[in-house]
Formats: sequence, C-alpha cells, structure tokens
Amino acid sequence: MILAGVDAGATTTRAVAVADDGRVVGRASAGPGNPHNAGVKEAAAAIARAVREAAGGPIPDLVVAGVAGIEDPAIKEGLRAALVTMHAAGKIHLASDAEIALDGAFLGAPGIIVVAGTGSVSWGRDARGNEARAGGWGHILDDAGSGYDVGRAALGAVLREHDGRGGATALTHRVLSALHLAGPEQIVGAARGMTPAQMAGLAPLVMDAAELGDTMAEAIVREAGRHLAEMAAAVWRGLRFAGAHPGAGIGGLFRHAVLRSAFAGGLRRACPEAVPTPPRLQPAGGALWRAFAVKGIEPPPGLIDALRGE
Amino acid sequence: MILAGVDAGATTTRAVAVADDGRVVGRASAGPGNPHNAGVKEAAAAIARAVREAAGGPIPDLVVAGVAGIEDPAIKEGLRAALVTMHAAGKIHLASDAEIALDGAFLGAPGIIVVAGTGSVSWGRDARGNEARAGGWGHILDDAGSGYDVGRAALGAVLREHDGRGGATALTHRVLSALHLAGPEQIVGAARGMTPAQMAGLAPLVMDAAELGDTMAEAIVREAGRHLAEMAAAVWRGLRFAGAHPGAGIGGLFRHAVLRSAFAGGLRRACPEAVPTPPRLQPAGGALWRAFAVKGIEPPPGLIDALRGE
Repeated sequence: MILAGVDAGATTTRAVAVADDGRVVGRASAGPGNPHNAGVKEAAAAIARAVREAAGGPIPDLVVAGVAGIEDPAIKEGLRAALVTMHAAGKIHLASDAEIALDGAFLGAPGIIVVAGTGSVSWGRDARGNEARAGGWGHILDDAGSGYDVGRAALGAVLREHDGRGGATALTHRVLSALHLAGPEQIVGAARGMTPAQMAGLAPLVMDAAELGDTMAEAIVREAGRHLAEMAAAVWRGLRFAGAHPGAGIGGLFRHAVLRSAFAGGLRRACPEAVPTPPRLQPAGGALWRAFAVKGIEPPPGLIDALRGE
Repeated sequence: MILAGVDAGATTTRAVAVADDGRVVGRASAGPGNPHNAGVKEAAAAIARAVREAAGGPIPDLVVAGVAGIEDPAIKEGLRAALVTMHAAGKIHLASDAEIALDGAFLGAPGIIVVAGTGSVSWGRDARGNEARAGGWGHILDDAGSGYDVGRAALGAVLREHDGRGGATALTHRVLSALHLAGPEQIVGAARGMTPAQMAGLAPLVMDAAELGDTMAEAIVREAGRHLAEMAAAVWRGLRFAGAHPGAGIGGLFRHAVLRSAFAGGLRRACPEAVPTPPRLQPAGGALWRAFAVKGIEPPPGLIDALRGE
C-alpha cells in the first residue's frame, strides 16, 4: 500500500510517497497548487502531477493534501472532483495547509505553528484536540507578515522614497533591478500583473537588505515578525494555554535571521511560556503523518527520521 | 461655444457645461469613469454620457476631463480614441484627476491639494508652474488614507477581532450588516468580488463609528488622516515651499470631522506654514476652469460663483 502527503503551496506543490512499511518511495514537486491563486483545475493538476511523480507509477491508495482556503466548500468539492477525474489516488483526503503543517510540526502533540510563506496563518491545537486559528484571510485583507505582505511593503517603500514621503532605501535599486524596471513610476504597472506568489518572490530581497542594515527594509521585516508573533499570541489565548507549549515557525520567511529574531522577540513579550521549537516535519511530511492516522496505522519506526526535512 | 469640464471618478463621473459667456448650460453625473477600475470603454461611455446630458443637445466645442492614471500613454490614447468615436466633443483635452482638482482649488494660484475619495493623491504647484506629486499609486500598493484603504482596514479590523488579535469594535456589526453577511468568515469571499469603489463605500460607516467613539474605527481614521498629511508634506518639501501657502482637502473623505481633524493635526506638525483653505471649485469646476485656459479665454466674471460646489 502506498500513501502520499502533499503540501499544495501558492508557489510550489510538494509531494512525498511512502509504502506502509515506512520505505520512502519518492519525492516530487510541481507548480502552484493553491486553488485561490492558481484556479481549481490548475491546482488539481499540480497536485496530481506531484503525486504521480512521487509515487513513480502505482496510484497511491490514499493521498492527504494540505491546501489553503479549503474551508470554502465550493473549492473543496471542486478540487476533490478534479482530483478524482485525474485518478490521482484511490482515496483523497483534503485538509487545510495549516493543519498539515501543525500535524508535521508536533506529530499530533499540542502546540502552535505560524506559517509564513506567500501567505500567513497561525494554527494551534490543545491536548483535547481543540483547535484555534488566527490570520490567513488572504492577501487582499490580511496575510500580515507574509511574503506577499513583505513584497508589497517593499514596493510601497520604493514609491514612498520616490515621493519624498519615506526615507532613502537600498530597496529601490534592488527592486528595480529584480523587476527589470527603469524607474519607480513603472512599479504600478508591473505590480498590476503580479500574482501573490510573484509578489512574495520579492521577500528574500527585502530580507537581504534588512540583514545588511537598510533601515526601511529592517522596519518592514521587523513589522512582519511582530505581526506573526501577534497571530501566535491570539491562538495561544484562544486555546487558553497555560504552562510551556511548543511554538514553531514554518515556511520560507523563517529562513531569514532578522525575521526570526523579530518573531522570537514578539513572542517572548506576548507569550513568555511559548517554547520555540523546530518543526519535527515540514508540511508535506505532516500530510503523510496524517495519512497514516486516517488509515488507522501507526507510523512505522524510522519514518519520521526518513521524512525529516519534508 | 460650449465648454464642458468632467471629473471622472472611480465611483461617479460629474460633468458641467457652460457657454463661453459664463451661463451654466447644465450639470450631469454618470457611473464610474476611472479607466483603471471600469475599463477604458466603460469609462469613455460614462464620460460621454455625462457630457451629453450636461450639454443638453449640442456637442461641446471642448471637453476637459480629469482622469486618474492618465499618465499611462496606453490608457490616455485608448480613452481619447473611444471618446472621439463617441463624438463626445469637438476637441478633447485629458488631464489627470489631481491636476483638475488643483486647478479648481486655487484657480491656478500656487498651493497643495490632497484628494481622498476612492483613491488618494497629493498634488501641488508653485508660482513658477513647477508641479510635485505624492501618493496616488493605486489601491494595491498605496492609496494610503483613501476610502479604499479605510474600507479595507475596517474589514481587517473585523477579522482581527474575530481572531482575537485586535480589540472589540462596533465595526463588526456595522460591516456585517452593510454587506449582508452572517459572520466574519464570509468577509474574505465578499471582499474578493468587491471593486475599489465598493470597498471605499465602507468608509462612511467607519467615519460614523469613529465619530461615535469606537476605538478601532478612530484609529483607522486617524491613521488615514496622518497618511494624507504626510503626502501633503512630501509635496510641500518637493516644491520647496517657504512661507504661507494654501492647502485644500478634496473628496468625500474630507466631509468627515474625525478625518479632517486628524489631517489638520498632521499638517500642522509637518507643515506649520500651510494654510488650510477650502477649494474655490470642486474638480469638475476645475476642469472647466482649465477648459477656458486651454481656449485662451478669460473666464467670464461670475463664472466662479456660478460653479461653486462643482
């Protein structure tokens, strides 16, 4: 029997397939699998492609896929129907992207995660299985502290410097050359055609500038860290956590030192009892962990080590 | 000879037509005339409709229309071609929405305006005709302090209260009932289909809540006022103004006392020499004033009084 776990992200879809004895069959990635950005059909195609490559031939018995915005019944059913049509798996279980990230981070134990990739969300679970969430309302209204948010703020900082509203920033040179633009006036036109994932693609450039001491970039990154800590704190309060509980930051933004430090600082102030803890598994591994739970099979010994980094 | 001035807004397009002796021929309004939001063809149709109704039969010899984002040559030429096809006028002169607002505010004299309607922008002109601008980069990246910005912040505040991230706010009840939603979870779906003008349509509700002392609403409105003052200050510095110069707030948001006071406070701090001055004419009147200038005719005595409120 083959099980597969999928993390369907706004930029990249990752899949990992294992046999029920714990042997890793394969790993694969595909393009955007977020139905809100990519559309339901394209998201399903990316998921099916990643699963097929990871499984390397046989159709998995069960696929657990973590997908953003799956709370919307129309999206959930549309995605499920498309995946069934594509014969992606014998059985398909759709979960939210935050749930599989939480499953992977603490393997079912209580705790809180904050995801910061193209979008952002915080999710937590207590010992009785109660869950709470904050953020993750999409890039138009929220996604505070996300890569999209950081990228948009960078474009804003360039325009504000150009206007004389904000201070000078190294972001101007970096953003213009990354987007191949001759001047700030071209930013609005360029931004009009950008997907959320493309906007979030500017975040690493902001992180770099912050690390090199650019004041404006640092302010953007520090504010993002604060927003992410605020989300975690809301979930902490929502679950009425008391005593030490683990908290993990997941997603591309947490690779950057300035953001990690701003997040950790904000968390220390808001939830002094939170214990910063690296996630046991990344979200695709969490989806696979959940696949074993759905099947009612104890994950084989060694599986967690084999999946580390997934 | 008939001249017409048009203010093509994101929500409403206003036109006023006068004879060259200063007699007001008529006024009319139509739907959205902002080509960025409504599309070039629909914007042209709204402008042509408003002009036709205002002129009441004869085709005006000259129409001056103030349009947002007219700096984009593709939009400018597309709009001009569509208006020519529609026989909207003998001659068509397209200006930016901010320019006609400035023309109307001070009738060509030096000064600074801040426009806050669906979008926001500041624009100024010195005695030598040098111009400077700040803001107005569109709702995705900027439009700080605009109606769109205020409406989006209100939706964000409702979601943050729902998450336990932000404090309690009367905006929740107001926003949900205005949008006919059962709960905050439905906000993301509702926002997805909203035009910038519809988002800005929530601003009056925020202003009302602020006036009644709602802390979250007040914070949103005060921040909007600060952003608008910051734009004006950037233009002030850009033009190297020294000594007293007039500054006018134009657009729907300035009808509200809390915003006016936050803007005035911010401006006092940043530009103590700016003299808050009500605009002589509203933007459509400014477009007409410019029509006389384009024709090289001195505006007839009494015209300004006849156009007051335009």
